[in-house]
Amino acid sequence: MPAVQHMKWYGWGVEGVSFHHEDKPGLRPFVLEIIDLDLDTPPGRQTQLSDLDIPTPLIGDELLGRLRAVVGDENAVSEDEDRVVHTYGKSIRDLMRLRGNDLPRVPDVVVYPADEAEVQQVVDAAIAADAVLIPFGGGSNIAGSLQAPEAETRPVISLDLGRLTRVLDVDEEAGLARIQAGALGPDLEEQLNARGWTLGHFPDSFTHSTLGGWVATRSSGMQSDKYGDIADITRGLRMVMPGRVLVLRGLPSTSSGPSVREMVLGSEGRLGVITEVTVQVHRIPEERVILGYLFPSFEAGVAAMQEISTSDASPSVTRVSDAGETRFSFSTRKKSKGVSVSGLVSKGLFKVLERRGWDLDAVCLSFVGYEGGPEHVARQKAIVKKIIGKHGGIGLGKGPGELYDQKKFDTPYIRDFLLDRGAAADVSETAAPWSQLVPMYDNVTAAARKAFAQIGVQGWVMCHLSHSYHSGACLYFTFAFRHDDQEPLARYDVVKSAIQQAFIDTHGTLSHHHGVGTEHAPWLEQDISAAGVQMMEGLFAGVDPGRNLNPGKITVTPLTSRA
Amino acid sequence: MPAVQHMKWYGWGVEGVSFHHEDKPGLRPFVLEIIDLDLDTPPGRQTQLSDLDIPTPLIGDELLGRLRAVVGDENAVSEDEDRVVHTYGKSIRDLMRLRGNDLPRVPDVVVYPADEAEVQQVVDAAIAADAVLIPFGGGSNIAGSLQAPEAETRPVISLDLGRLTRVLDVDEEAGLARIQAGALGPDLEEQLNARGWTLGHFPDSFTHSTLGGWVATRSSGMQSDKYGDIADITRGLRMVMPGRVLVLRGLPSTSSGPSVREMVLGSEGRLGVITEVTVQVHRIPEERVILGYLFPSFEAGVAAMQEISTSDASPSVTRVSDAGETRFSFSTRKKSKGVSVSGLVSKGLFKVLERRGWDLDAVCLSFVGYEGGPEHVARQKAIVKKIIGKHGGIGLGKGPGELYDQKKFDTPYIRDFLLDRGAAADVSETAAPWSQLVPMYDNVTAAARKAFAQIGVQGWVMCHLSHSYHSGACLYFTFAFRHDDQEPLARYDVVKSAIQQAFIDTHGTLSHHHGVGTEHAPWLEQDISAAGVQMMEGLFAGVDPGRNLNPGKITVTPLTSRA
Repeated sequence: MPAVQHMKWYGWGVEGVSFHHEDKPGLRPFVLEIIDLDLDTPPGRQTQLSDLDIPTPLIGDELLGRLRAVVGDENAVSEDEDRVVHTYGKSIRDLMRLRGNDLPRVPDVVVYPADEAEVQQVVDAAIAADAVLIPFGGGSNIAGSLQAPEAETRPVISLDLGRLTRVLDVDEEAGLARIQAGALGPDLEEQLNARGWTLGHFPDSFTHSTLGGWVATRSSGMQSDKYGDIADITRGLRMVMPGRVLVLRGLPSTSSGPSVREMVLGSEGRLGVITEVTVQVHRIPEERVILGYLFPSFEAGVAAMQEISTSDASPSVTRVSDAGETRFSFSTRKKSKGVSVSGLVSKGLFKVLERRGWDLDAVCLSFVGYEGGPEHVARQKAIVKKIIGKHGGIGLGKGPGELYDQKKFDTPYIRDFLLDRGAAADVSETAAPWSQLVPMYDNVTAAARKAFAQIGVQGWVMCHLSHSYHSGACLYFTFAFRHDDQEPLARYDVVKSAIQQAFIDTHGTLSHHHGVGTEHAPWLEQDISAAGVQMMEGLFAGVDPGRNLNPGKITVTPLTSRA
Repeated sequence: MPAVQHMKWYGWGVEGVSFHHEDKPGLRPFVLEIIDLDLDTPPGRQTQLSDLDIPTPLIGDELLGRLRAVVGDENAVSEDEDRVVHTYGKSIRDLMRLRGNDLPRVPDVVVYPADEAEVQQVVDAAIAADAVLIPFGGGSNIAGSLQAPEAETRPVISLDLGRLTRVLDVDEEAGLARIQAGALGPDLEEQLNARGWTLGHFPDSFTHSTLGGWVATRSSGMQSDKYGDIADITRGLRMVMPGRVLVLRGLPSTSSGPSVREMVLGSEGRLGVITEVTVQVHRIPEERVILGYLFPSFEAGVAAMQEISTSDASPSVTRVSDAGETRFSFSTRKKSKGVSVSGLVSKGLFKVLERRGWDLDAVCLSFVGYEGGPEHVARQKAIVKKIIGKHGGIGLGKGPGELYDQKKFDTPYIRDFLLDRGAAADVSETAAPWSQLVPMYDNVTAAARKAFAQIGVQGWVMCHLSHSYHSGACLYFTFAFRHDDQEPLARYDVVKSAIQQAFIDTHGTLSHHHGVGTEHAPWLEQDISAAGVQMMEGLFAGVDPGRNLNPGKITVTPLTSRA
């Protein structure tokens, strides 16, 4: 097997890394309160690989032989664990299905091509044999973009880009780097940093997702306010298509008709296999700081972020948690190790706020990030401080931001910890105009609560605003409930669907940065209208008339057939 | 005929407005020097409308009746002048063909629908009758996007959006406005300004181009460094397609698969008729200033703009003229009316520069624009001043910038003035990474000079950099030569083709902001690769299998068939 490290087949992250709550004394009472789950509950029995009913590979010797001839025997793998790892992404649905031994269609072979030429041969072999080809990056997808259709009778090939990990070239004058699509976040940042550059793209999945995956699903990162979403960052790319390579050179801008670059962005493998991306890179900034703030209400925080977005300031991070997420953040603070939220958001501070008349249950934690030269950072901070003050907010200094920066990639581990104890926790996010964000917040939380009531659970929903644009922002909701293994997926679907529908009904999109996949496909037509779906379908059909390229993603699958 | 004002059928702008050189004493000797043309030459005989051989309309009574029933008799026009106005855009090729009585295919009818519902009925009637439908905004296109294919035997309908001119709604909280696609630049700015807003989109064609046209051709404006290109500004839109309306709501961002919004942008009518656009709008800035600078060389100016693009400054305009364009700018200065280039770039200043060792023939004029609050503007100016100084540049103050701001929409009038006197003047622009801009400049000017030699003329080529991005910028070339009515189009093609080919060969795109049309279509495959062209063709074929929607644009037409 090639030296490509994968996440655990049954959960997030690599073996040996997991969440524990013992050093966070506030978390257990908080979780007990919000979803009636005791974190000291021992985990349920862990499903073993040997428990799974893994179907026999449905692939003929001829195709298998052809693939082995292309990539070498050791890089065309049909072992159980590798096939299972490549069956799903890491959504809560994926994990529930895995743990529930629900694997109707597992890839028949996983191939690890060494370079673009081998990718081309694999693609062409797949088309020639009428096989299905699913590109695979870090496997962190949570939109159902990686699974084969359940009823797929053709051979299914998972094409893992894990050997294409190099920064090929940095144009130091233009700030453009050519990077292979299979590079994981830390890997490409390390290579860039060594030359004094950064991509500046830090999605929550950063440690386990790839550049190609970011492009294929329209990812955004924590500092996207400054560096742009991956669509802005991507200036050119190479994509292997049946019998040909799409070559888009790295360009700052162009008026060459409908944007082919923007057709590949978000295409989730339906148009081909992205092998290389030309990205904007930046010099590592002189200063980088994230400051914490508190607002008396979520509405005040949203209003402040809106005003910042139209001000002369251009921060790198804008984020406001609602009261619930703020309480969650405080509950995860460690006992007393150096700088922490506990040290800064002290009982003393809360007394001051109380005297000012704040409703302490409504307090909202906010982060704003700044990058650049010292003068620039100082001036940005001053502008933001004034705006935040105008909206009743107060500054907390650097402590909370540093903590946030350290903890930012941990959340998926908490989800897995809860899942081990019979609780579902998941996220759903949207983007909408500023004018819709408060109604969106109200409607989505109401919809979630109604759904919790419908399925008879004590549920929890919390939210933050992030990714401010001129005309709006992203609202990111996290929800959780204890299902006690009683129809977990069906009940999850009720909540997830209610939230997604509230997005659309409140002038939001189906997802700001998680893509469509199969998970959000039922809302695509309501998002971009039937005519928009037809345009996409025409594009896909033109490139892939045989539906060999990751079929069933983006434009199909009604919700009813999935549960 | 409806009250829609058009430009002159034979040239740029409205009747009664034209260029004259008498108040610009430096221009006549300059033009005499560079292309051996005496501006005092009286104009050649002006082609009259009655000189033209306008083909009889090729449209049956049934379709005509249907269209009249939809839009009303007075809004379905078959008069000669209206048909001629809608035959071409305003490229130099278009004007040469008009003046040469070369009108192989004139629209058979021009319709002026009142609203989207009427547009839908016109589109559906066109498809039902297997007619060709060409959307028409301001008619300023210079890429050949408006003409019907010469050999088209089906009825040709020009759909003029001139009655859809209203700002429908401004979401004051989100900074989003819904505007009808037929609104001309001044018209929509006036409506927005009245409410305290601006779109901030000012292409050279501003006075005679429409919002829908900008979207359909991927326009950029002079302040795009701040406000973004039209692709950034466009957050949503409505487009009438056969039997349906595409509805993309105004959203700050989305990850809903391949971007349908970015498929419509630049689609030049091949996917449907854009009827409404949701755009980002901004509050009118407190301060707005454009400062002039001089550089000792074009290379120094480019290097300075590159450094500005990666600095903490974010100006609204970045522009550097080469030495030739600088001389042209100086030659158009008026005698001595208040603030002018002549007042500031005085003989005294030139003596200072000479003492500093500058080659005065190489001096390059630059403009950088600033917008925002007073502190912000002051700080931006300080950062830019330092960078410009580092690259040997010096400041000229406000005068030249104010002059530039006043004159910016005048250039097409000069072109027509020259054309009246037997000289061709045209523009070609590209975008490329910073690392390629100096080689691009050298290669394009060399290619143009070689082409001038080939066609045996004393030609002129000049250039400016504008529209800085993180990774590169636009280079905008203007070229001219005296053709004395000797095969003007064939000789023009030699020069234009040489420049376009040099763009592609030096890692540039075929056009930064003029679109593809028929003019740049021969270079599309070299720009986006054969696979990219095939993707576009699949998209178009899916939407418009009968090729009724502005056929022949973007993806076809070899150069040889056009001359």
